[in-house]
Amino acid sequence: MYGGSMPRTKGDHEARRREVSEAVWRVLAAHGFDGLTLRAVAAELGATTGLLTHYFPAKRDLLAYALDLLDRRSAARPRRVAPRGLPAVRAALLDILPLTPAATAGNRVWVSSWDTALADPELSAGHAERYARGRARLSELVATAQELGELPPGDPDRIAAGAQGFALGLVVQALFDPTAFPPERQTDLLDDYLAALASRC
Amino acid sequence: MYGGSMPRTKGDHEARRREVSEAVWRVLAAHGFDGLTLRAVAAELGATTGLLTHYFPAKRDLLAYALDLLDRRSAARPRRVAPRGLPAVRAALLDILPLTPAATAGNRVWVSSWDTALADPELSAGHAERYARGRARLSELVATAQELGELPPGDPDRIAAGAQGFALGLVVQALFDPTAFPPERQTDLLDDYLAALASRC
Repeated sequence: MYGGSMPRTKGDHEARRREVSEAVWRVLAAHGFDGLTLRAVAAELGATTGLLTHYFPAKRDLLAYALDLLDRRSAARPRRVAPRGLPAVRAALLDILPLTPAATAGNRVWVSSWDTALADPELSAGHAERYARGRARLSELVATAQELGELPPGDPDRIAAGAQGFALGLVVQALFDPTAFPPERQTDLLDDYLAALASRC
Repeated sequence: MYGGSMPRTKGDHEARRREVSEAVWRVLAAHGFDGLTLRAVAAELGATTGLLTHYFPAKRDLLAYALDLLDRRSAARPRRVAPRGLPAVRAALLDILPLTPAATAGNRVWVSSWDTALADPELSAGHAERYARGRARLSELVATAQELGELPPGDPDRIAAGAQGFALGLVVQALFDPTAFPPERQTDLLDDYLAALASRC
């Protein structure tokens, strides 16, 4: 697939990048960041590790690429459509949870990235920024729900931080124990959470 | 330190095990599970990797040992003392959070263990059991708070599951962004969570 005789057009270059991305994603979904090596990606591609060092001179480049890929995949995933106010807050939180096989695979890769990211200050800062952006988006939705009288007054950033924390924890619980946390249970727990918040209006 | 001329008494054997444990823990705290190798533990001990294969014939044995060590360290950590009822629920949740340097180090190791554990069905089941035991303990405290009228009626397991999820998510947020989630902020968010729960009484 990666023989030297292939014509080197721009389209080919982009097709290769897409294939590399797909291979990195399949390795991540199957083995997590702990199993992400040039050798594993090369095997998935049917290419040599030598060819891959062209894309990723060092292991750290592969990790940074994988985190970026995870970020882009997460940003591009389909989102629930919901009316503004509390339903939009609920939809944004449901979008985080592992309620479908695709969402479970994506979350599995996220959780698996935490060990790698925490071990590297720069990667860790990148993750902190991603979560801060998520909280900022959630905070806007919370503020709208407050304007509509569906959530109690108070600092929307603080409410968003609590809600994001709740969703992240539920992700971890559901990944380790899908039997105890099937999709209906996750949804019920989220609705309990939102009902408790809303009851303070 | 591990010369062959040392007398082999039972006390020596236990002292060695303790030294190995300490070395494994220091490697985990510094580099996470991703950095846990026989070579790293040997370097920390000033021993040969050959000697360590006596304790850990395979990488998986070292991982299982590390997870067990993490479990025992977590179980043995000092706990807050609090009156029964809602204060006991709050204390148990505060005990989970990274509010001190020691609790931060322990949580760093827990989070780092998730990638390794999720990649192995047996290790993953072990983690699921640990979290289930934690929820069972929390559920008893919730039931007492309900009897005292400090928490609303309803399935205590369900309330405990939500509260554990909230605490786990807060751990992740605080590890990645200690500036945005200093101890006071974590405590405030937990108190918001408990106040919202209690307001439904």
